[in-house]
Amino acid sequence: MPTYQMKLLPTIRTIADLKALPVERLAELAAEIRAEIVATVARHGGHLSSNLGTVELSVALAYVFDPPSDKILFDVSHQAYAWKILTGRADRFSTLRRTDGLSGFQKRSESPCDPFGSGHAGNAISGALGLCVARDRAGGDEEVVAVVGDASIANGVSLEALDNVRNTTDRLLLVLNDNEMSIGRPVGAFSRAFARILASPGYNRWKSRIEAYGLRRLRMAPLRSAYHALESRVKSLFLRRANTPFESLGIRYVGPLDGHDVAQLVDAFRAMRGSRVPTVMHVHTCKGRGFGPAERDPEAWHSAPAFDPETGARANAAPGTVSWSAAFGDSLCELAAENPAVFALTAGMTSGTGLSEFAEKHPNRFLDVGICEEHQATFAAGLAAGGLRPVVAVYSTFFQRSVDAAIHDIALQELPVVFAFDRAGVVPPDGPTHHGIFDMALLRSVPGYVVAQPRTPAALREMLSLALRENRPFAIRYPRGSAPDDRAEAAGSAATSQIQVGRAAVVSRHPAVPGAAFPGAPDSPAPLVAIWTLGPQDDWAGAVAAALSAAGVASIHVDARFVRPLDANLLRAQVSRDGVALFASFEDASVRGGLGDAMRDVLDELGGGAAVRPLVKFGWPADRFVPHASSRDELLLRFGIDPASASRTILETLEKTK
Amino acid sequence: MPTYQMKLLPTIRTIADLKALPVERLAELAAEIRAEIVATVARHGGHLSSNLGTVELSVALAYVFDPPSDKILFDVSHQAYAWKILTGRADRFSTLRRTDGLSGFQKRSESPCDPFGSGHAGNAISGALGLCVARDRAGGDEEVVAVVGDASIANGVSLEALDNVRNTTDRLLLVLNDNEMSIGRPVGAFSRAFARILASPGYNRWKSRIEAYGLRRLRMAPLRSAYHALESRVKSLFLRRANTPFESLGIRYVGPLDGHDVAQLVDAFRAMRGSRVPTVMHVHTCKGRGFGPAERDPEAWHSAPAFDPETGARANAAPGTVSWSAAFGDSLCELAAENPAVFALTAGMTSGTGLSEFAEKHPNRFLDVGICEEHQATFAAGLAAGGLRPVVAVYSTFFQRSVDAAIHDIALQELPVVFAFDRAGVVPPDGPTHHGIFDMALLRSVPGYVVAQPRTPAALREMLSLALRENRPFAIRYPRGSAPDDRAEAAGSAATSQIQVGRAAVVSRHPAVPGAAFPGAPDSPAPLVAIWTLGPQDDWAGAVAAALSAAGVASIHVDARFVRPLDANLLRAQVSRDGVALFASFEDASVRGGLGDAMRDVLDELGGGAAVRPLVKFGWPADRFVPHASSRDELLLRFGIDPASASRTILETLEKTK
Repeated sequence: MPTYQMKLLPTIRTIADLKALPVERLAELAAEIRAEIVATVARHGGHLSSNLGTVELSVALAYVFDPPSDKILFDVSHQAYAWKILTGRADRFSTLRRTDGLSGFQKRSESPCDPFGSGHAGNAISGALGLCVARDRAGGDEEVVAVVGDASIANGVSLEALDNVRNTTDRLLLVLNDNEMSIGRPVGAFSRAFARILASPGYNRWKSRIEAYGLRRLRMAPLRSAYHALESRVKSLFLRRANTPFESLGIRYVGPLDGHDVAQLVDAFRAMRGSRVPTVMHVHTCKGRGFGPAERDPEAWHSAPAFDPETGARANAAPGTVSWSAAFGDSLCELAAENPAVFALTAGMTSGTGLSEFAEKHPNRFLDVGICEEHQATFAAGLAAGGLRPVVAVYSTFFQRSVDAAIHDIALQELPVVFAFDRAGVVPPDGPTHHGIFDMALLRSVPGYVVAQPRTPAALREMLSLALRENRPFAIRYPRGSAPDDRAEAAGSAATSQIQVGRAAVVSRHPAVPGAAFPGAPDSPAPLVAIWTLGPQDDWAGAVAAALSAAGVASIHVDARFVRPLDANLLRAQVSRDGVALFASFEDASVRGGLGDAMRDVLDELGGGAAVRPLVKFGWPADRFVPHASSRDELLLRFGIDPASASRTILETLEKTK
Repeated sequence: MPTYQMKLLPTIRTIADLKALPVERLAELAAEIRAEIVATVARHGGHLSSNLGTVELSVALAYVFDPPSDKILFDVSHQAYAWKILTGRADRFSTLRRTDGLSGFQKRSESPCDPFGSGHAGNAISGALGLCVARDRAGGDEEVVAVVGDASIANGVSLEALDNVRNTTDRLLLVLNDNEMSIGRPVGAFSRAFARILASPGYNRWKSRIEAYGLRRLRMAPLRSAYHALESRVKSLFLRRANTPFESLGIRYVGPLDGHDVAQLVDAFRAMRGSRVPTVMHVHTCKGRGFGPAERDPEAWHSAPAFDPETGARANAAPGTVSWSAAFGDSLCELAAENPAVFALTAGMTSGTGLSEFAEKHPNRFLDVGICEEHQATFAAGLAAGGLRPVVAVYSTFFQRSVDAAIHDIALQELPVVFAFDRAGVVPPDGPTHHGIFDMALLRSVPGYVVAQPRTPAALREMLSLALRENRPFAIRYPRGSAPDDRAEAAGSAATSQIQVGRAAVVSRHPAVPGAAFPGAPDSPAPLVAIWTLGPQDDWAGAVAAALSAAGVASIHVDARFVRPLDANLLRAQVSRDGVALFASFEDASVRGGLGDAMRDVLDELGGGAAVRPLVKFGWPADRFVPHASSRDELLLRFGIDPASASRTILETLEKTK
């Protein structure tokens, strides 16, 4: 996309500025917004395809409705970039997804024009219904509009909400943003039903004629309702054999409309204002619209890293690096080749979870269930009950949807389901809706799970292999991004092939720097700190160990590998044999419910005055949500758990307990 | 129901015995099974209405299909009593819901004829699809049949699964057990769609004629498929205006059938065997069928206590007692009268959660959303975002379905939703699918929640009042069953009106019995133990304190009231001022993630060698699920946390740490 001359956009500071434009100029404005989005995402990355698809929708919504009085929700709200630009945030748009900048999602605390946040697909209809009831009870007249993607709408929460619309309110407009893509490929019967409607040529002909001539002119309420009565009758002529799922739920269906014809959208929204019938307006949009590379491969541009806005070229990843997702996908492909019972599941994230190759190689042992994380987990329980070995690849944050299934369907029935928690740990630019820091805490009190995190891709492979041999529920977590290159290590030693359930490994030992003396221990040996970490934390542990060494404190770095069961033998030996004076834990997870708590439990069991050593737990806080930020390092600093702060805390605690 | 002469049932020991009966005698057998269910539930209580509705269904399923090879799932599986009687468990049926007896639900470890357990509504279609895929991959020929209630099928997991049927398998039979009741009143558009079909007289006439003459004769496969083609055409004539939601999802719809005409059911199931089209068979049943009191008021007899099987009379509750659910409902009615913003929600449990009176008194501030716990919580977030004060009444175990909403929609958006966790703690006769012991653990790492449990109904009222004044997420838990009578206490003192967030209360002090001396402390004052409990645990704490006193140990009983925030000031004062030698915690919850862990966190923060005191945590284990049992006392004994065992553990720990 070439540099773009911004003429209109700089003049739109408020929604009033927007409303002062004639309808005829909105397409021009949309083009400028599209260019602004491409330029901004090109700098630091972000959700591109979906936002290029909703530009005209956002313009038409802001033009016709009156936010913040009218409530406009986007689901998932990573498609709300144009909305942000149009609702008073254009001047801060360059800070998108950066530390202290705009969130990549709608966010209540960011703007009154964001009435309800949706980082997890499918929550907006429920939230919108709540806003409707509050309005109805207060006798208010504001509109509530939820723009819901075609993948979000097939999520269980959406379906529960759709089933409840008629019990709840007469006034709700749902805009079904149908881009025929969702994040991956659309699945499920709902999508097919839409496709059937779209394919009905008679209906579409009538529709476009009416929409061209009818809607624009029918502004007065009585005419409008007469129009809708007519529309309903005509539609039933065409659609008798393609009844929509919405109508069987008692919700009026209108559409499909062209989601890039902003004038048509404006007319349609104007016609809808004040409607007393809950309505789904079906809008057809194109992901990646206006940016060639994204139009051609919208999935690759769903969540994009920085790129050249003219060519679409991305900065090359460092040579030889592999993402954790790819390491998972590769390992699972290999293991599936050895074991015909392996079955892989994803909930709308085939590419994101690294399963594209698996889906090609083992199409009969792979299923994308759509954004249905609850069904995914219970379905996995059924597969396991039938003798297969299901692997559920799911982002840690979306696993929050599967907690009951993880307890009631999997653990209680002792079924060997393997969870692969991708994006476990903070995901800085996405922020709190996407940080994967609760998975271990949610499983902590649930009997039966093994919970593990590998330090290297080779360890991930071994853990997966182990999980598929164990006959019990098993969860393996790993972060977003690049994995450490461990090919030398994997080739050179048998270390990872010795991975056993409940066994930790000593990574390195760090004596005190000669001459440095920890206060109070001048003549005796340097006090010894055991630094237990989970996952790929060598950099962190190394920096802490170096700071401790320099302060006259020796340390030993342990890779915990398993949080459940924790290596109690090693912990016990470190207390009684090695004379460890202080334990520290560090994990990319909530400080509650993970490695630190597991160590606390074991230390408590060791019991008795002398055996108990102080434990300093480092992890994300439980009293505040972790915000979005440009990088993990900035977040570590903000919460005082960067290596420098952590080593200070350790030294101070040692000092106190002398 | 008068005593019943059992002629057939005693002869049916195996499924082969059943299959040897002529179809004509199945109705007689069903009557005997019905009598057996009434007699058994009358003795110790259980799910009555739903089981009386599924007798003929179960007989026909066992008669036609071949369990355990064929997989028959019930959802919710508390409607599987007849199934248990018919599948080799008749001789143990009298042990139903008793310690070491039969579970009240389908249970994989109990019988191979229970292929998948469903204690939480809506999981069976997902589980069944898993079993189908395992069969399809293995090239097996067994049938998979899920019997799903009309309330279960509108749950989000069911809807996700229905949306996935066509992607997943060609061979699945879903029996929609439509009793027009669900647990409470059916809600939602699905139910309305069924009602519309039922009301179509032309279709029903045709249907019954075909079913009477057609199905019985059409046993051969080619004829069967010809029949289904015909059926589909005929149905489309009648049902063009009443298309079912299933057909819009690509699932064949057959029905409605009379669920109490066992011969008709046998014919229909025979016709379905081997079908290669996923099918919903709509069966109309009557809850409570055959037992007058339950037919007249099925909701009251959903989960019944012991009763007189001839008259239906129940043992009177002790005079003056009130259930926790009723105490909650009464308090919320009062608070709603004071505050017009209060809005109460239930997910299909109006009566169970004590909200019947609220629903009558404040119909515009009450909604039963059906068994949709996820929508319920996110909808509550929307209500709160709109300025209302929603109270979500939900059984603790079903809250497991709402975890993501509790994190992503409520806590992250800092919305003041009040959760009222009913049935928090063990629910012994129901067992592990229903024990409410994970709620606190699931919230432990989530920022923002206040978590409280009252000791008395008056305290519950104060906590609710407080929750509705606080502007943040708030969870209050209370157990199933009778609450202590605290009217004297409530009238006589201002104790409960002093409830403040994060403040515990000393309940009682227990000096050592004069003359009793704890070993090792003969001349010094008796060691002091602080017993912190959560909720109505006076009996437990009193018994432990008495045992300690007798052993020469003094104690102080603290009612924690709040787990988050915990009363750190009192804990600190007990360490430094009172010289407490040991802390004990007791909670009716998982030993991980609740009161004990909260105390451990604060004691750790107090830090430093001398300040740290041993803490002994009592609660339900995290390494095993808690089974069903006749009573809580039996469970306490089994897990070594009854007062006698607990006081021994405390004394041993004191001894070690001397």
